[in-house]
Amino acid sequence: MPHIDLPEGAPGIVGPLIVYPETEKHLNGLAQAMLRGPSSLSPAEREMIGAYVSSCNECYFCTQAHAAAARELYGSAGGVVDLVLTDRQAAPIDEKMRALLAIAEKVRQDGHLVTSADVERARAAGADDKAIHDTVLISAAFCMFNRYVDGLATWAPHDPEIYKMIGAKLAHDGYTSYVP
Amino acid sequence: MPHIDLPEGAPGIVGPLIVYPETEKHLNGLAQAMLRGPSSLSPAEREMIGAYVSSCNECYFCTQAHAAAARELYGSAGGVVDLVLTDRQAAPIDEKMRALLAIAEKVRQDGHLVTSADVERARAAGADDKAIHDTVLISAAFCMFNRYVDGLATWAPHDPEIYKMIGAKLAHDGYTSYVP
Repeated sequence: MPHIDLPEGAPGIVGPLIVYPETEKHLNGLAQAMLRGPSSLSPAEREMIGAYVSSCNECYFCTQAHAAAARELYGSAGGVVDLVLTDRQAAPIDEKMRALLAIAEKVRQDGHLVTSADVERARAAGADDKAIHDTVLISAAFCMFNRYVDGLATWAPHDPEIYKMIGAKLAHDGYTSYVP
Repeated sequence: MPHIDLPEGAPGIVGPLIVYPETEKHLNGLAQAMLRGPSSLSPAEREMIGAYVSSCNECYFCTQAHAAAARELYGSAGGVVDLVLTDRQAAPIDEKMRALLAIAEKVRQDGHLVTSADVERARAAGADDKAIHDTVLISAAFCMFNRYVDGLATWAPHDPEIYKMIGAKLAHDGYTSYVP
């Protein structure tokens, strides 16, 4: 049971977003700008970073929702998302994404862990300032979203079809307000 | 040196906020709603929670900036902020703030750690749903801000006078945009 009163049946972050609209609009606005705004990283790549960080933080709702969004955005190449979540080192991703996921994982643990060598590796593989910025911010922001969802003990559905629907909505409509 | 190109002399989070205005407006908007909007917790109490979480995350810039804001907002009682940062258990705070700081510290480590008993303790001391929600969100959000600041290796000044100025500005003007 959630630690505070939330609408029954609202999955994960949706409950607190509905009940607290003053912060909802900025949380959704941040997600939209960060995951869909102009970037040298595709929305699919950014959603995969978010799903990966959520999975390392063991946030079931965020992992399932954003993995589903990434799969939908990758289309026929969507299988890569599950390979990254299962074993990042063995997954068939390019060196740029490999270097960025390594940065994301360090930021997740502690921002101080990121070294100049980590960043140089990403740059050598083609990452520009915006890609590095976005990777750090996405990892940091999912550390927030994951804690918001789990710190309030929100309810998470376990039916994969529900996450498929959530993922399709996020992929096609983006982060729109739940509040009229 | 920061990991990406940032304006020289812009302290902590200010550099990335200036360079990336698309996300800046939501990060500042979130801080304003969460730390200054309607709540059963005062802005001073909320800034103190943010400073405390930043201090546990060893984020020098965020700790100094938000401790200064909290001190300014507490006025003549501002000494409590330093006592909380030095030794939370021994600090002269009421049972409600004690219970909320305990929740904030668990959220900082991992949202799953918060138990019903932690929340019941806060409720018994007078915390309502909004106070519990705000405590969880503030802790989660500072886990983001701290990682954004340190994951990009932003520059932090060490002159206490600078933090006094930043704290006074945050206390009196709130979180306004750095971008015209």
